[in-house]
Amino acid sequence: MTELRQNMATKEWVVIASERAKRPDDYADAQEPVIPESEPTHDPDCPFCPGNEELDLEIVRMPSTGLWQTRVVRNKYPALSESTQLTRTFDGVHRLLSGVGYHEILVEHPLHNTTLALMTPAEIEVMLETFYERGWSIRSDSRIEQIIYFKNHGEQAGASLRHPHSQIIGLPVVPTDIRHRIEEARRYFDDNGECVFCIMMRDELEKGERLVAVSEHFVAFTLYASPSPFHIWILPRQHSVSFLYSQSEEMADLARILQEVMQRLFVGLRDPAYNLIIRSAPVKEISNDYLHWYVTIVPRVSRTAGFELGSGMFINPSLPEDCAEFLRKVKI
Amino acid sequence: MTELRQNMATKEWVVIASERAKRPDDYADAQEPVIPESEPTHDPDCPFCPGNEELDLEIVRMPSTGLWQTRVVRNKYPALSESTQLTRTFDGVHRLLSGVGYHEILVEHPLHNTTLALMTPAEIEVMLETFYERGWSIRSDSRIEQIIYFKNHGEQAGASLRHPHSQIIGLPVVPTDIRHRIEEARRYFDDNGECVFCIMMRDELEKGERLVAVSEHFVAFTLYASPSPFHIWILPRQHSVSFLYSQSEEMADLARILQEVMQRLFVGLRDPAYNLIIRSAPVKEISNDYLHWYVTIVPRVSRTAGFELGSGMFINPSLPEDCAEFLRKVKI
Repeated sequence: MTELRQNMATKEWVVIASERAKRPDDYADAQEPVIPESEPTHDPDCPFCPGNEELDLEIVRMPSTGLWQTRVVRNKYPALSESTQLTRTFDGVHRLLSGVGYHEILVEHPLHNTTLALMTPAEIEVMLETFYERGWSIRSDSRIEQIIYFKNHGEQAGASLRHPHSQIIGLPVVPTDIRHRIEEARRYFDDNGECVFCIMMRDELEKGERLVAVSEHFVAFTLYASPSPFHIWILPRQHSVSFLYSQSEEMADLARILQEVMQRLFVGLRDPAYNLIIRSAPVKEISNDYLHWYVTIVPRVSRTAGFELGSGMFINPSLPEDCAEFLRKVKI
Repeated sequence: MTELRQNMATKEWVVIASERAKRPDDYADAQEPVIPESEPTHDPDCPFCPGNEELDLEIVRMPSTGLWQTRVVRNKYPALSESTQLTRTFDGVHRLLSGVGYHEILVEHPLHNTTLALMTPAEIEVMLETFYERGWSIRSDSRIEQIIYFKNHGEQAGASLRHPHSQIIGLPVVPTDIRHRIEEARRYFDDNGECVFCIMMRDELEKGERLVAVSEHFVAFTLYASPSPFHIWILPRQHSVSFLYSQSEEMADLARILQEVMQRLFVGLRDPAYNLIIRSAPVKEISNDYLHWYVTIVPRVSRTAGFELGSGMFINPSLPEDCAEFLRKVKI
């Protein structure tokens, strides 16, 4: 049966078209399995491999001495630059801002052929700490309004290099889409006196049918109104607007649950292409009431087309409950 | 130089990163040219080819007798169905609507291997009239709030069948994204007493640098804040909220300018994959003041990744002014 479901936090509707349904297995079967273990651990031409470090681009490495586990480098072709002067002008009738900002690459591991699903929780924790350190540093630049932490894995998800890496972009504006999400969350809070994300999480824990993994500090589930198959949110149980306010025990726990979720996807869907995003509040957002930071994982197993572009809505051919059950049953 | 530009109608920011710039030619060079003329005009296995019509799915054909030029058929795997009862309920804490609506395919031409760029303006006019006829019919169903008319061309744009076709989806809700656009346009009208789209169009006509084509009733241009290369809007000069209020001379003129724009893209970028959308007001929108219907064409020459998913913003590696100039110079 086909139905329209609404994401209660963003108010976005999706069409769950399970009459056109693909079974979760179909997505795995459609993938070309990548066997990272069969690929070289080191590529002499890879700019992110040990030995090829371009030191003039390096911002930070962890640990700072000895063999590095993670490195952050300036993007060689940055979309935005911190050395630009911030100017806000009119270009005729249009608004124009100079391209001030940050565009950094986080090299996640020295090994060329590894990926989050194959890394240890301790290694993922270092990666998260590197995000955290860069986040606090970029946040101290008063011109920056929003930081986007994200990862593209696989060509279908926009990754051009194989070596495991993420990106950090610091923006001089709050994107309109994020402004709209804030307004919706505030409206919900005004009506109900509670964070809408906290209510969603409590509901998922009670129902259980969309849970993918749970840990001491986090809950991972497929969205009731998933725009696409296997669309996952990982929410901190502790209400907080920003990833940057996380405690160290939360960071360690996030590393563990992230590794579990990535492994379930890796095994179940045979290393699918995906995007991972840390959605955190605008850096100058001062209320801690109604926003709630989280991690989104979007496997790129379906394609967007004219309907999605024209309506902002998505047609999802699979049931989120089936996707969650499939992932829970994956043997890892 | 990198800059952030704002779409004055939607308030969306884009990063124009011309330091990473590709020249317009690069996009053409990256395409695998498709030579429709070398493909068969008829495919015995194609459900849209003459002779293979599934009459039980047919809704309308034009002309109604003799050889058809266009046909509208029910989607065999519809995302929404008109025979469903409209129910609006709560599924626990979430809102749920039954999957009522319309999901139709418009077969644009009897020939299997043609495409908009190769069709005559008269043929495109019949296609537009078919959209128009179905739009008015779907609109008469009081359960429908929004109609999305769109076309996916090429696999990259989500088309699964080669035979030229479009789609029409009638929705029982106004999508959140469209609600937000309405709010922005209304706010602009309240502040300035004029339709923001009319102002944008006047500015484009004065500046000229982003024009792709102009006709008696329409103006085609690349957006100042184009989210992606060659992103084009075709606006009617006459302010109107809905495609369905078009006069017949406007329809004929739209067919001509659409054919010209499609031909410029076809020749210049070697038959790129693209999405085409008619953006028209919600069917129950009663004000004619601040919304303005238009056609969007989005060539799929770049890929969206984690940044776009996480921010709703886009990084466009090409200058809209360069893209427009490139298209104007294409010999057709």
